[in-house]
Amino acid sequence: MAKRKSARRAKSDTKKKLSRVSVSPVGEGNVFAQRGVSARRSQGKLRHIPWNSVELEQLNPLLQRQFVVGRDVMVARVLMKRGCIVPEHCHANEQVTYILEGALKFWIDGKEIVVNAGEVLTIPSNMPHKAEALSDTVDLDVFTPPRRDWMEKDDRYLR
Amino acid sequence: MAKRKSARRAKSDTKKKLSRVSVSPVGEGNVFAQRGVSARRSQGKLRHIPWNSVELEQLNPLLQRQFVVGRDVMVARVLMKRGCIVPEHCHANEQVTYILEGALKFWIDGKEIVVNAGEVLTIPSNMPHKAEALSDTVDLDVFTPPRRDWMEKDDRYLR
Repeated sequence: MAKRKSARRAKSDTKKKLSRVSVSPVGEGNVFAQRGVSARRSQGKLRHIPWNSVELEQLNPLLQRQFVVGRDVMVARVLMKRGCIVPEHCHANEQVTYILEGALKFWIDGKEIVVNAGEVLTIPSNMPHKAEALSDTVDLDVFTPPRRDWMEKDDRYLR
Repeated sequence: MAKRKSARRAKSDTKKKLSRVSVSPVGEGNVFAQRGVSARRSQGKLRHIPWNSVELEQLNPLLQRQFVVGRDVMVARVLMKRGCIVPEHCHANEQVTYILEGALKFWIDGKEIVVNAGEVLTIPSNMPHKAEALSDTVDLDVFTPPRRDWMEKDDRYLR
């Protein structure tokens, strides 16, 4: 009896945990909410945001970054001076990079790929990559889920 | 003892279920895979894509569109001539709109919002919106999950 009761309770706990996950399709969104991480995070609100009103972080002399965070997606503008190097790193977040101006050379998946203005690179989860700006570059990066390390400024590899 | 064992098993079941959820953060990605929806969908592959190699759909005389699809995110370029109207519509997909050139006027959430070049609008899931191009406009739209209606060309409201 104790066993059945305990199993019932456990099942109900599982349900609760799963429904908590399923409320937000990405899951991690709720983790953020639970942890009170709200930095520039809209929690799915309608917001009208001029980029020139968004904090522009100077991460190192060659690298500036600003970003807007939705519920499950982050859109970032990364401004790099020629020669800027983003050391090899890796993240679970899926990434789509769209070069608006300039050119970025990537070392990724055993290849060297130059992504020029007007071109896109889709980077799957957990694929290590390194990049170098071949000229002054404006890079639009899209991540899902949002990069928690960026939001929490826990991104020493860039600083 | 039985209770403790059952609780342990239940905990392990919960772990399994939660870790299964975390494999695909958005979930719907797997739904697509299960349903064999693969149109321009990378399934999380590394891809280098110049925009000028991507199909540019002419949806109506004032509206052209092209998009790149990752696993859980879609990035689209929407080219609108002045006067182009996107009729009111609504989708579960979260949307971030970044106007690269021109200006879009939105009717959304009981408000009129003009989003100019260099500005962003975050549109939460299921919020009805209508838009009009106030001048020739290049609009970058990010969706998560990807718009299945666009991928399946089941988007009569635009045609």
